[in-house]
Amino acid sequence: MPDASPTKWHLAHTTWFFETVVLAPVLDGYRPFDAQYAYLFNSYYEGLGPRHPRPLRGLLSRPSLDEVIAYRRHVDNAMRELLADLDEDHPSAARTILGLNHEQQHQELILTDIKHAFFSNPMLPAYLPGQLKGIVRALSPAWAHFPGGVVRIGHEGPGFAFDNESPRHDVLLRPFRLALHPVTCGQYQDFMADGGYCRPELWLSDGWVLKEREGWTAPLYWLQRDSGWHVFTLHGLRPLNPAEPIVHVSFYEAAAYAAWAGERLPTEFEWEAVAQQQPVAGRLLDVNRLQPGASVGEAAVEQIYGDVWEWTRSSYDPYPGYKPFDGELAEYNGKFMIGQTVLRGGSCATPRNHIRSSYRNFFPPSARWQFSGIRLAGDA
Amino acid sequence: MPDASPTKWHLAHTTWFFETVVLAPVLDGYRPFDAQYAYLFNSYYEGLGPRHPRPLRGLLSRPSLDEVIAYRRHVDNAMRELLADLDEDHPSAARTILGLNHEQQHQELILTDIKHAFFSNPMLPAYLPGQLKGIVRALSPAWAHFPGGVVRIGHEGPGFAFDNESPRHDVLLRPFRLALHPVTCGQYQDFMADGGYCRPELWLSDGWVLKEREGWTAPLYWLQRDSGWHVFTLHGLRPLNPAEPIVHVSFYEAAAYAAWAGERLPTEFEWEAVAQQQPVAGRLLDVNRLQPGASVGEAAVEQIYGDVWEWTRSSYDPYPGYKPFDGELAEYNGKFMIGQTVLRGGSCATPRNHIRSSYRNFFPPSARWQFSGIRLAGDA
Amino acid sequence: MPDASPTKWHLAHTTWFFETVVLAPVLDGYRPFDAQYAYLFNSYYEGLGPRHPRPLRGLLSRPSLDEVIAYRRHVDNAMRELLADLDEDHPSAARTILGLNHEQQHQELILTDIKHAFFSNPMLPAYLPGQLKGIVRALSPAWAHFPGGVVRIGHEGPGFAFDNESPRHDVLLRPFRLALHPVTCGQYQDFMADGGYCRPELWLSDGWVLKEREGWTAPLYWLQRDSGWHVFTLHGLRPLNPAEPIVHVSFYEAAAYAAWAGERLPTEFEWEAVAQQQPVAGRLLDVNRLQPGASVGEAAVEQIYGDVWEWTRSSYDPYPGYKPFDGELAEYNGKFMIGQTVLRGGSCATPRNHIRSSYRNFFPPSARWQFSGIRLAGDA
Amino acid sequence: MPDASPTKWHLAHTTWFFETVVLAPVLDGYRPFDAQYAYLFNSYYEGLGPRHPRPLRGLLSRPSLDEVIAYRRHVDNAMRELLADLDEDHPSAARTILGLNHEQQHQELILTDIKHAFFSNPMLPAYLPGQLKGIVRALSPAWAHFPGGVVRIGHEGPGFAFDNESPRHDVLLRPFRLALHPVTCGQYQDFMADGGYCRPELWLSDGWVLKEREGWTAPLYWLQRDSGWHVFTLHGLRPLNPAEPIVHVSFYEAAAYAAWAGERLPTEFEWEAVAQQQPVAGRLLDVNRLQPGASVGEAAVEQIYGDVWEWTRSSYDPYPGYKPFDGELAEYNGKFMIGQTVLRGGSCATPRNHIRSSYRNFFPPSARWQFSGIRLAGDA
Repeated sequence: MPDASPTKWHLAHTTWFFETVVLAPVLDGYRPFDAQYAYLFNSYYEGLGPRHPRPLRGLLSRPSLDEVIAYRRHVDNAMRELLADLDEDHPSAARTILGLNHEQQHQELILTDIKHAFFSNPMLPAYLPGQLKGIVRALSPAWAHFPGGVVRIGHEGPGFAFDNESPRHDVLLRPFRLALHPVTCGQYQDFMADGGYCRPELWLSDGWVLKEREGWTAPLYWLQRDSGWHVFTLHGLRPLNPAEPIVHVSFYEAAAYAAWAGERLPTEFEWEAVAQQQPVAGRLLDVNRLQPGASVGEAAVEQIYGDVWEWTRSSYDPYPGYKPFDGELAEYNGKFMIGQTVLRGGSCATPRNHIRSSYRNFFPPSARWQFSGIRLAGDA
Repeated sequence: MPDASPTKWHLAHTTWFFETVVLAPVLDGYRPFDAQYAYLFNSYYEGLGPRHPRPLRGLLSRPSLDEVIAYRRHVDNAMRELLADLDEDHPSAARTILGLNHEQQHQELILTDIKHAFFSNPMLPAYLPGQLKGIVRALSPAWAHFPGGVVRIGHEGPGFAFDNESPRHDVLLRPFRLALHPVTCGQYQDFMADGGYCRPELWLSDGWVLKEREGWTAPLYWLQRDSGWHVFTLHGLRPLNPAEPIVHVSFYEAAAYAAWAGERLPTEFEWEAVAQQQPVAGRLLDVNRLQPGASVGEAAVEQIYGDVWEWTRSSYDPYPGYKPFDGELAEYNGKFMIGQTVLRGGSCATPRNHIRSSYRNFFPPSARWQFSGIRLAGDA
Repeated sequence: MPDASPTKWHLAHTTWFFETVVLAPVLDGYRPFDAQYAYLFNSYYEGLGPRHPRPLRGLLSRPSLDEVIAYRRHVDNAMRELLADLDEDHPSAARTILGLNHEQQHQELILTDIKHAFFSNPMLPAYLPGQLKGIVRALSPAWAHFPGGVVRIGHEGPGFAFDNESPRHDVLLRPFRLALHPVTCGQYQDFMADGGYCRPELWLSDGWVLKEREGWTAPLYWLQRDSGWHVFTLHGLRPLNPAEPIVHVSFYEAAAYAAWAGERLPTEFEWEAVAQQQPVAGRLLDVNRLQPGASVGEAAVEQIYGDVWEWTRSSYDPYPGYKPFDGELAEYNGKFMIGQTVLRGGSCATPRNHIRSSYRNFFPPSARWQFSGIRLAGDA
Repeated sequence: MPDASPTKWHLAHTTWFFETVVLAPVLDGYRPFDAQYAYLFNSYYEGLGPRHPRPLRGLLSRPSLDEVIAYRRHVDNAMRELLADLDEDHPSAARTILGLNHEQQHQELILTDIKHAFFSNPMLPAYLPGQLKGIVRALSPAWAHFPGGVVRIGHEGPGFAFDNESPRHDVLLRPFRLALHPVTCGQYQDFMADGGYCRPELWLSDGWVLKEREGWTAPLYWLQRDSGWHVFTLHGLRPLNPAEPIVHVSFYEAAAYAAWAGERLPTEFEWEAVAQQQPVAGRLLDVNRLQPGASVGEAAVEQIYGDVWEWTRSSYDPYPGYKPFDGELAEYNGKFMIGQTVLRGGSCATPRNHIRSSYRNFFPPSARWQFSGIRLAGDA
């Protein structure tokens, strides 16, 4: 999988980010741990020099894990020294906070990459020991209605946000409905049983071509066994629980499901208008379940944060007046603003203090290895 | 070029469209000219059965051109018969108008496909005879200012429009500026001279990767000769005229140019807000120049229609409340609403009565073989 | 099909060969018809300058067929002028004969390329009109026995031969058997019915991988219809005739068939040892059947020339002491002596005076679009 | 590199080979260590069930190295038990010897695969510590002459040999010359300086295409530094020693070098005719230099064994009367007898008791990561 990286690489890369973005510019006489690491562990910053090609990351048997841990310790010590007497308004403070948010993003990627690597192993090893419990409860589609109108979208302090969440601006929305719960595996099975993967009229053209080429007939990580569908999780292979939210679908599958259901996906603005009203709570990384869980079934919009990232019907375009971060950090988000689709709300692998209502995640519409799911919307 | 088709195929395909979409459903006892043609000349309608793969269109030495012309005559006769006593409100009338608009789209594609095929031939043959005249006049960037606010966007009769221009709806715009003229070849050469194709910080990530892989160092159809840059046109190879609008650039190049200029591309809504104020006029297909021409240099927004399609900073997403055409025509536009970027305004190869302020053209951001150019915008 | 070329290209290429190899070096003041044609119509001679890429040959709508015919007339006239008073020992005489033999090779390729292009057209047009007659006669495998020993292999005048047939040299053969007739379609169907395309133990490793990737389940040009197997021929689609020799199989399929039959393919030396004893006769191009025909069933080695090229178990290596043609003609054969397999005996599309016992045809083991078939051999 | 595998995989695969080929058929009640390992560690035996795809071998983070070592211990114990009272004539004895020879092949592959993996790491780590000494001595090309005639080729006991070395048979050779020493790096530099990588007339066609596509301008593992050419070895990066044999060239480069030198490569039969006269001696694996060394410069054929595998001008075809091993071991060699070229003599990474005069190694002509070098031959 060319999009995935080994855990050792993630550890070294986040370390390199602190070294390069925080330490090197300010710490007098800071000596890089190893000059070659800049080449090995730069992910995509053209402004920071040439890089080791992404698909070759898996070949790096050197430096060893011990050496990477020593690298981390070296940078941790320098960070401690720097932070010891750092004023809150110092530019390095903001860069440190960015480094921490960057590392949180990689914490989620470590889990999704491990999940994919373990699934690629015919032995299907489990990452977490023990049995995973899940309730089984059937839910009918249900909706909350919203009036639309002019809505304030985007981040406006206090606290950290990425550049792509700014500037805060007004968006005009028509009245809309939003589903109370994410689509469940059981509902998705109805779509499959009704020929969902065989009916081109439900699919976007690029999605249909990709589905045909890849031979998709179910979400990623679903395996048919004699006793029925099973799902590979970080706890190993388990029988499918129809009450749990569907996860590991591409945007194409999400859009096809919505077309089949006679509904649509929400725009990112509709989503944010609703999420602004809710506190951040739910099945996030700290719960350490690492697998979406079933809805409680309340008569309110539920699971807006956590469980699964929700594909929106919004291409990842810049906000009006958007300005990227300064200097080499301009590459952090801005250069990816084409060909990607926005996801919202965080997943069971997202750190709790990393997510917020204005947070814009984005992946190509073909991506399936993130914890990506579906929430429906409709016109009022 | 897998995106291009032979002229014979275009002729047969538009004929097939009339036969299948207009004639077959209503004309009692209509006999298809050749049952196999449905397979050969269906472009992308999954609902209308299997199709000959697009990249193989160039291999069809049979049916011969004579046979395709006979096919056309057959369908023309049947259309004449149908139209003879057709009421204006009959559904077939609307479908006929759609067929005509569809054919106009292919008229433009025929020209862009021929241009690409002739350019692929090392002999660089000309499509049109005779010399092409062009004035040379240097223009400085100049702007018109617009207040923004709530703007009505989309088509609302009378007259034909595609489904993707509906429904008409309100969009909230911030104040903005729009360039009076499209970017010229001379201005684009300044970008090139300033390292435009070598500075990754100006480029979107996907664009940079593509540029590197394809080895782009100039727009499509530019050739370096001893006497300087030349441009391949439908009139053959000519020395570059710096006053003419830049054309045959991808969205990636348009966005990189805008970043270099310290500006941005307009959204499709900003563009439409301005175009609504202007009558459809300019260098369109009927002028038969088939090459963009220089600006007159008026102190007003000029060349908004014709000359070059203008890349916008808007991904091709559905409008709120969008409903595709009915039945198999749902595939006409809706299924392409991902991974494409909107262009506006028509080009020197667009039929005059085909274009309007609400018209949304779309291509992948990588496409360069259309007459696609650049108009800058900025925040007020 | 990247290996095939349009007929217009073949005509222009053989013309270019005469112009470049025969005329240009000797005819005082010879003016090339069009200087650009050297680029367009050079096939693979690195020594003769850069070339138009092979897979793009199909895109050349210019020069038109009329222009290519005028080109041919121009070169024919110059050739006539040259030959008028040419001494038999003049080097140009030998080069003219090479040009004629070269053109004969392309005559066969024109037919195999047209066959492939027509087969790629879903309308399956016929190249030759009229019905093709064929007898149906079942043959049992039967063998002729040969003593081996030291055999003289290769060409030794008089008359023309390619460089790859030289020098004539001795080869030591063990006693062997050779099948009296080529393998028939009926026999090949037995192989298919016995799981021939599903049993990896019968296949060479590269062949199995290719077969899996391409999804081969039958020879090229076989189509399953409700009424049973049909075969596409230059006469159009016909029901399979089990008595006709199997044709359009790759070396991999030939070798798998031989393994299944418990036999092997002959080496090119065994084949030549037998063919030396026979006059050139059989179903060759002049018969104008353009399709292999059934054996007569004599008690002798039959159909050694014509009908189908016979795959041998000999890689295309140089003969001991091999010297390529001089100058730029060194590229004619020598540079292909790796990764190819030898075929012997000519086919129904081979000119009669082009073939001989020492003639070495060669194609990659994957090639199927030539008239390539199977004759078995065994140890005595 | 899709051809290379991790060391852990090699260890598990050779273990699996003993388990499957030796133990399972005969040891009553033998329990496979882990039923899934057959899938993971089968290399290419179709007859032994489905296999993990080769390019994915690098992704197997499970089973861990500890588990593979436990697997090995398990199989070692079972082998010890089996061998304890095994009669020399028992079929398992022959299979055990085959397993040992198989493991020796993988010992060499482990080294060549590690070399390639370390070279792919921008840090260029060394496998062996310490400095490598090398003498520098210039040698002129010199030849030994041989009379040819009928030569006995192939293995004829006693002792082990692979099936591809049989049957022993007579081959008729013309008189020939063989170079006393392998081509040196210094001599190869002369070829490079004379435009060797830029002159298509020296190259086989497939080789030229590959060279152009891959951008080869020197052998694998050569790196240009400010102080001149360096060579990556298992001892790390060292300045090039012109006296050492050239190594890590493809057959294409070997053939181009020979063409440039006005000579040719020997056939495998010429090579064997000479090698039969010599005892097995030289720089083989037990010397633990793992890098070819310079010639002594004697007036005799030198370094025929060890140092570098010598590319021959023989495609890897079956010997007349060739019969593969029985049963599933038929796949060991026979199915690779197409598209490969024969190498002879062993290298600095070949176990001493693994090599002999009749030993036929084979790789595709494109392969460069083996210790493959060049010895010239010529007609007498």
